[in-house]
Amino acid sequence: MTEADQSAVASGVRDTEAPEEEEAGSAGYEEGVTDLLAALAYGELSAFDRLAEDSREAPTLTGRAALASMAAAEMGHFRLLQDKLSERGVAVEDAMRPFAAPFDAFNASTAPHSWLESLVKAYVGDGLAADFYREVANWLDPETRELVLTVLSDTGHSAFAEREVSAACAEDDSLRDRLTLWGRRLLGEAVTQAQWVVAERDALSELIIRGSGDLAGIGSLLRRLQNNQNKRMSRLGLG
Amino acid sequence: MTEADQSAVASGVRDTEAPEEEEAGSAGYEEGVTDLLAALAYGELSAFDRLAEDSREAPTLTGRAALASMAAAEMGHFRLLQDKLSERGVAVEDAMRPFAAPFDAFNASTAPHSWLESLVKAYVGDGLAADFYREVANWLDPETRELVLTVLSDTGHSAFAEREVSAACAEDDSLRDRLTLWGRRLLGEAVTQAQWVVAERDALSELIIRGSGDLAGIGSLLRRLQNNQNKRMSRLGLG
Repeated sequence: MTEADQSAVASGVRDTEAPEEEEAGSAGYEEGVTDLLAALAYGELSAFDRLAEDSREAPTLTGRAALASMAAAEMGHFRLLQDKLSERGVAVEDAMRPFAAPFDAFNASTAPHSWLESLVKAYVGDGLAADFYREVANWLDPETRELVLTVLSDTGHSAFAEREVSAACAEDDSLRDRLTLWGRRLLGEAVTQAQWVVAERDALSELIIRGSGDLAGIGSLLRRLQNNQNKRMSRLGLG
Repeated sequence: MTEADQSAVASGVRDTEAPEEEEAGSAGYEEGVTDLLAALAYGELSAFDRLAEDSREAPTLTGRAALASMAAAEMGHFRLLQDKLSERGVAVEDAMRPFAAPFDAFNASTAPHSWLESLVKAYVGDGLAADFYREVANWLDPETRELVLTVLSDTGHSAFAEREVSAACAEDDSLRDRLTLWGRRLLGEAVTQAQWVVAERDALSELIIRGSGDLAGIGSLLRRLQNNQNKRMSRLGLG
């Protein structure tokens, strides 16, 4: 991530010197949590969609069944989030609605052109999202934190993607270079859309600012995300 | 179903006057059961695919999440069949392979052109398949029968389709007529493909002939399927 990206994200979450303290249970906190759960829920629904589509393109019946099973597991996570939101008196479809546009924009701007591109996209996109949500989970009440960590558990896609992508790149340098550029582009697009989300959702941006402490805190969060992204690319045999 | 359809299916399962008795546990029986479980498994994978695709076309976020959850439930059934086949020493992808072509041909020849056509297709197709498998389940050993009945359990799609289709047809006669013709065409295509499957798979056709007793037995089976199909169309507000 470039310095410019980082400051763009930082300005997306607003420049606030002294965020007022809000406890778990306060209206602002609760609204932020609802937003977070709703963003996660729409993310699961999108992941289902993308994995189901990839499953159709899989070159073998084994791959097709494996991806379809992973898609199904995402809906198991979706169900947990739906139930939690419903306990909070919120219908999941209403809560998700504001997140549909930025998630769909990310997917439209990064439509994969091959089976390997779609594997890299799922791996990088899910990994980045999981890292981000895991950071946010640290700032939540224990019950919500536990739910967030549960729905972030990997559905088996990662090992599958690592195996397929490294095998394909091991003997094809030009493929490896193309997929490396693809991975970087995905990161850039994800940052653009994340910035949009955070800028639009006041309660969510408050949650993040309060959690990370200040702009310096957000800067280190972004550096941790970038480091993890580099490691992920290496595990795919890219980078 | 016309008389011609019936005799076509009957000839598909071969003309045999005195099927030799085979017990559960015999090689022929076991091969027939493997075929049956494999056909069911590919059916679940196809249903997943179709529901996932329909979910993408759903006019509301609520409909989208509902169809995605049903697709996920089909993969739960798929998993049970995969485990059972694996206990029998068969890899699900190998066992399913012969069924891919006829199932895919059915889906290609009946690609829906609207959201309502796809709801009717799922409802009619699943209902017909479930009726057929339930008949076959009567001829199986208790353990296999229980598995077959479990994976046939409705994933919630039926009530959803009945609600959406009857509501849409209640105030639009020409839509009702078009969807009625569509339902009849689906039945015809399903019979054509089922006939192909049974004609190609000796062990499966033996299982059916032995179970139904003789050609007269197959005739009454087909009449029961037709009757249930008529009832299903009425429940959709069609027919």
